Amino acid sequence: MPHAIQTSEPGHGVLSSEPHTTGKIVKPQEEQVVLNTIRCLAADLCQQFKGGHPGTVMGAAAIGIALWRYEMRYNPLNPDWFNRDRFVLSAGHACLFQYIFLHLSGYEAWTLDQIKMYHSPATTGSMAAGHPEIEYPGIEVTTGPLGQGISNAVGMAIAAKQLATTYNKDDLKVVDNKIWCFTGDGCLQEGVGQESISLAGHLGLDNLILIYDNNRVTVDGSIDNCFTEDTSAKLVAQGWHVIDVYDGSNDLAAILDGFDRAKKLKGKPVFLNIRTIIGFSSRKANTGPAHGQALGDDEVAYVKSQLGFDPSQKFCIPDKVYDYFSGCKDKGAKAEREWDATMEQYASRYPDEYKELEFRRSGKFAPDGWEELLPAKDKLPQAAQPTRKSSGLAVQALVPKYNSFIAGSADLLESTFVNFDGQIEFQNPASGLGDYSGRQLRYGIREFAMVGLGNGMAAYQKGAFIPIMSTFFMFWIYAAPAARMAALQGLRFIGIATHDSIGIGEDGPTHQPIALASFYRALPNINLIRPADAEECMGMWTLALSEQSADTPSIFALSRQPVPLLAGSDRSKVHRGAYIIWSRGDEAEPELTIIGTGAEVSRAIATAEALTSVKNVRVVSMPSQRHFDAQDAAYRRQVIPSGKSLVVAIEAWASYGWAKYAHASLSMQSFGHSAPQEQLYDYFGFNPKDMANRIDVWVKRWQGESRLPGVGEFEELLLGVQGH
Amino acid sequence: MPHAIQTSEPGHGVLSSEPHTTGKIVKPQEEQVVLNTIRCLAADLCQQFKGGHPGTVMGAAAIGIALWRYEMRYNPLNPDWFNRDRFVLSAGHACLFQYIFLHLSGYEAWTLDQIKMYHSPATTGSMAAGHPEIEYPGIEVTTGPLGQGISNAVGMAIAAKQLATTYNKDDLKVVDNKIWCFTGDGCLQEGVGQESISLAGHLGLDNLILIYDNNRVTVDGSIDNCFTEDTSAKLVAQGWHVIDVYDGSNDLAAILDGFDRAKKLKGKPVFLNIRTIIGFSSRKANTGPAHGQALGDDEVAYVKSQLGFDPSQKFCIPDKVYDYFSGCKDKGAKAEREWDATMEQYASRYPDEYKELEFRRSGKFAPDGWEELLPAKDKLPQAAQPTRKSSGLAVQALVPKYNSFIAGSADLLESTFVNFDGQIEFQNPASGLGDYSGRQLRYGIREFAMVGLGNGMAAYQKGAFIPIMSTFFMFWIYAAPAARMAALQGLRFIGIATHDSIGIGEDGPTHQPIALASFYRALPNINLIRPADAEECMGMWTLALSEQSADTPSIFALSRQPVPLLAGSDRSKVHRGAYIIWSRGDEAEPELTIIGTGAEVSRAIATAEALTSVKNVRVVSMPSQRHFDAQDAAYRRQVIPSGKSLVVAIEAWASYGWAKYAHASLSMQSFGHSAPQEQLYDYFGFNPKDMANRIDVWVKRWQGESRLPGVGEFEELLLGVQGH
Repeated sequence: MPHAIQTSEPGHGVLSSEPHTTGKIVKPQEEQVVLNTIRCLAADLCQQFKGGHPGTVMGAAAIGIALWRYEMRYNPLNPDWFNRDRFVLSAGHACLFQYIFLHLSGYEAWTLDQIKMYHSPATTGSMAAGHPEIEYPGIEVTTGPLGQGISNAVGMAIAAKQLATTYNKDDLKVVDNKIWCFTGDGCLQEGVGQESISLAGHLGLDNLILIYDNNRVTVDGSIDNCFTEDTSAKLVAQGWHVIDVYDGSNDLAAILDGFDRAKKLKGKPVFLNIRTIIGFSSRKANTGPAHGQALGDDEVAYVKSQLGFDPSQKFCIPDKVYDYFSGCKDKGAKAEREWDATMEQYASRYPDEYKELEFRRSGKFAPDGWEELLPAKDKLPQAAQPTRKSSGLAVQALVPKYNSFIAGSADLLESTFVNFDGQIEFQNPASGLGDYSGRQLRYGIREFAMVGLGNGMAAYQKGAFIPIMSTFFMFWIYAAPAARMAALQGLRFIGIATHDSIGIGEDGPTHQPIALASFYRALPNINLIRPADAEECMGMWTLALSEQSADTPSIFALSRQPVPLLAGSDRSKVHRGAYIIWSRGDEAEPELTIIGTGAEVSRAIATAEALTSVKNVRVVSMPSQRHFDAQDAAYRRQVIPSGKSLVVAIEAWASYGWAKYAHASLSMQSFGHSAPQEQLYDYFGFNPKDMANRIDVWVKRWQGESRLPGVGEFEELLLGVQGH
Repeated sequence: MPHAIQTSEPGHGVLSSEPHTTGKIVKPQEEQVVLNTIRCLAADLCQQFKGGHPGTVMGAAAIGIALWRYEMRYNPLNPDWFNRDRFVLSAGHACLFQYIFLHLSGYEAWTLDQIKMYHSPATTGSMAAGHPEIEYPGIEVTTGPLGQGISNAVGMAIAAKQLATTYNKDDLKVVDNKIWCFTGDGCLQEGVGQESISLAGHLGLDNLILIYDNNRVTVDGSIDNCFTEDTSAKLVAQGWHVIDVYDGSNDLAAILDGFDRAKKLKGKPVFLNIRTIIGFSSRKANTGPAHGQALGDDEVAYVKSQLGFDPSQKFCIPDKVYDYFSGCKDKGAKAEREWDATMEQYASRYPDEYKELEFRRSGKFAPDGWEELLPAKDKLPQAAQPTRKSSGLAVQALVPKYNSFIAGSADLLESTFVNFDGQIEFQNPASGLGDYSGRQLRYGIREFAMVGLGNGMAAYQKGAFIPIMSTFFMFWIYAAPAARMAALQGLRFIGIATHDSIGIGEDGPTHQPIALASFYRALPNINLIRPADAEECMGMWTLALSEQSADTPSIFALSRQPVPLLAGSDRSKVHRGAYIIWSRGDEAEPELTIIGTGAEVSRAIATAEALTSVKNVRVVSMPSQRHFDAQDAAYRRQVIPSGKSLVVAIEAWASYGWAKYAHASLSMQSFGHSAPQEQLYDYFGFNPKDMANRIDVWVKRWQGESRLPGVGEFEELLLGVQGH
């Protein structure tokens, strides 16, 4: 039978059998067995298919015990219980850590057989992915790309604070949970982690507990090689409470004491700096290989013999280990029952708030009919205005009305039009600037963290929050790693991406996106929408908030410069991705089709009007390539009769990707330039008269041919333009 | 005549006429006039075209005086003098600050007329872009996207340290300059700034001085809204010397004293936290509008009257202001002459080192013939191996030999194969881990900073350094904002992007890039090269290091999994972007052309072999779309006879962009999945047999047609595959 042993081997911090003395732990002997069981289990699980990350589990097992056995509030029988604590494993590669405790604490789906699928050859049926994935019970958010888990946790802490402040009453607390985040050395090196920590400190989020598994070893070995700052001191400087624990691989009492204090501390988020030994109890402890490689058969056997297990037995979990966690289910169920009772009282005492909260929990942001709040086309400003400003009309129409929206900006509130009437800033009330009921969030100049936080809010309770986040389109490149994670997880946000082209003007090439749209267009499950005018802006918002987009983030690419309200624009067609917005001559049989997007649509129409080579010509507005691709072939052929008509695209971005829809394009051939936007459009060849000339020459060439251009004959009609 | 005045207006920190008392400043009255002149000039320059950023110049003018008049070593008559101090304006939007001092200190190109082109409608002839651009004299690096300037400065400090340690002798110092970086609040909020600060502290770069223009105001107003950490304390925790200056808008003496101390401090980089007042002397001081808007005619007049200037006069620079800076040219020329003398002695005493240094200064990394160091095809491992490992053969062959290379990784040294024989780590010698002569750099888990640092090294002296930087391809999304800046500036780096597809296997969708290649392919001036085997790896390195790529960064997308050495692969054809690597039947008239890239090329060949629908088929390896596009039409038609042959592309990324070259593709239709790579390739439909079946069906359909598919008929042949 397993039991803890002592060893004379020095320097590896091998387990002492001394019982811990915290009053909470009444069965020290069992607890030792629990620790050892988890360590051997991690070693076995990585060894079975010779891959994975054993070291963190072996080093941090005591932290896991403290969390799942003692500190966290959750119900294994209902992983989605609303008022549960949220646990985010920012060090996602250590997913076994989470899987093992989900199993031990009684999540039914997380059987031992399921955990044993970790790194198995199975392509279906496994939940034990190489990084935790949100689709599975008990996983709050998909992590892996380092640093982002911290931002997700900060976002969840904001969500919980905001809900608590909005719905809690003096007599009834319906939201009073904690957010726990487990981070390794890597997440603290990543900039997004730092941005998030800085903002969490500013906001004073005292419902957030960040656990630093400080083992000082990464893939490449000791972090003394590259990361030697005084992290605790730094966090203090950033407005956090800091608690140090010095033997986190063994000293469960100290960990529990730290967590207890962390739960009680007020006014600031809490950082627990817990020193652990990666790969603890293996001779590879404290080395890079313990981080991300199976230990090897010999070493696994060594670990087991050190820890009193039979090396010939695999995946051994003694009954007393299950016994040790056997109370988790009851404890969780009881907590949920108590909360149910609270909610019952809440429903009767505060029926309006109850109804709204229940509605938000259902995942809808508004009752049917919200589209009608958006101004009709004849109520839109008839004068030219920037699409960023037109988008702001929708913000004004919707955001004040629906509490699901949390709007905010990375320091560009006014120029991205995400302010709204009556807004309260989400701020630490001690700052005097707002309070935690606020739905206007100042992210600071932290684009990546902004979207990582938004993902945390969106993941907190699917659909209960729709974060609206803004910066210039160019700086959605800073946020791209987080936007990608939203698309991967099916988390809806609204991304406001203004100043979306050379139209930003004087700021010059550093601020002018050329290639970024290609990334977002290629990325699965994200709506990149570029509206032509105010009317399409209304369609864009409608599409992004529709049921169709419930699991899809959207990014709106919006102009800095004014664009006219177009006669042919139609909000109801935006969701089809493209539609005919203007035509001349034979509507059914155009000789030429011009596709434009966003601010270039009005230029495309002006270009079409100036053409002399063709009589029958149409202009297609294509706010979203992805949605157009999703239409049936008949609709697509109707809009772009590509087998019959020459097709040319006009867009002030790189031409990449347009060959799918067009035979030629007028696109950016280089990075941008610093000058006012009107001059720049001319400089880069986007003056309608110049474009018409280029197109006329090209059309005439093909009018002499009996066929249309084929693959390999795509032409960039603005080649050689720049620098004139 | 201008003179400083006192005012009774309280609270705006308007100038005192009290002379500063530092011993250095012998003409306090003139210095006051200088300050006021610069403030009014900034106000005028923004007001003329009603745009720009006046506030920082007005608030930080005294810092500029301290830098350009007193502290920095440079020669206005030779902006490219090798041993000059480097100045990086990380707060790039404050470019007027730099332009004005370049003008005053005597850079000939920076005439007053030139500066007056700031925000003008001119599209040509202006150097006064909205953000500083590296192309122009005195600008060391293009900045604007916030935070990155700090990383560039850290990279420059590494470059200078590395050169100094490599070439300096006890008796002769040929490199002994300082790197000055000017940052605002924004750069310190950005994660990339934080990553860079952390690493600079670790490395102990005492040739780096980071000046924090601490005005606590950004576009959206006071940073009390979002950024309230104790930055000085934080920097101390991160291993920096910190010097505080409390009245940086006025107290030139304190600034000079701080700079003097900063230059003398050893062992750590120095952070000067200088409090200033944005928009100083305007009533808009300390507000958001002072940051990024022209002040307005009335306010400009007010400022001038406050400061003793005639409001009706614009762009007034009294002679005594020019007099004040008149010594800069002589001082700089003298410093350069002294250095020339040092170099002369160095040439005679250390001819080998001199020769090497001169060679590197010329911008070449190696004498002709370096390609021959790469193993010939018959010397390459004949067994299958990952292309990341094959790439490592080139690292081993070249990096030890040429001092221009600085290799390193964001914590993935071994798995990205950027280690090399005899490497020394670039480390603070006090750490005992290496020294500053090292050319192996441990960036930590800081991908964005890594590439920002690389840009700084590459910009330090064009061509003298070629940074080699590695991480998984997926995490080149973290670094994308910096890679873009390299492409924009024409800075050559070698990016190693391994584990480049679903082939990463068990790590799952968070680590599997699907869309990222579309960004890099659309981005101007960057080589994304995906080699099929070890032979193409040699061609890839040759291309990236060729003269053709001297101003172009490269990213190598490399497989985790083994790929065979292909009979038809040919390094000499990589630079053409694509070539025929295999064919069957009629070579000149293929019925079908299959394009593959990277690890999918061998699968494409196996697929072609399994086809039953066609007799004549060829496989094209396309390691670089960009280079293929650059070939003449005859070559392109020869490789892809697209008017005659059906064309299908095989690539385990999104299909986005392939319609330009192919009628159909076998591509990823979704994010990836966690499973071993072999199973994943099958799961997603990339098994050659399955692919051959899909292609056969598609080919047979088109064999019945009299034409080839046209635009709008591009097909994704793996639609519906996932989840089987």
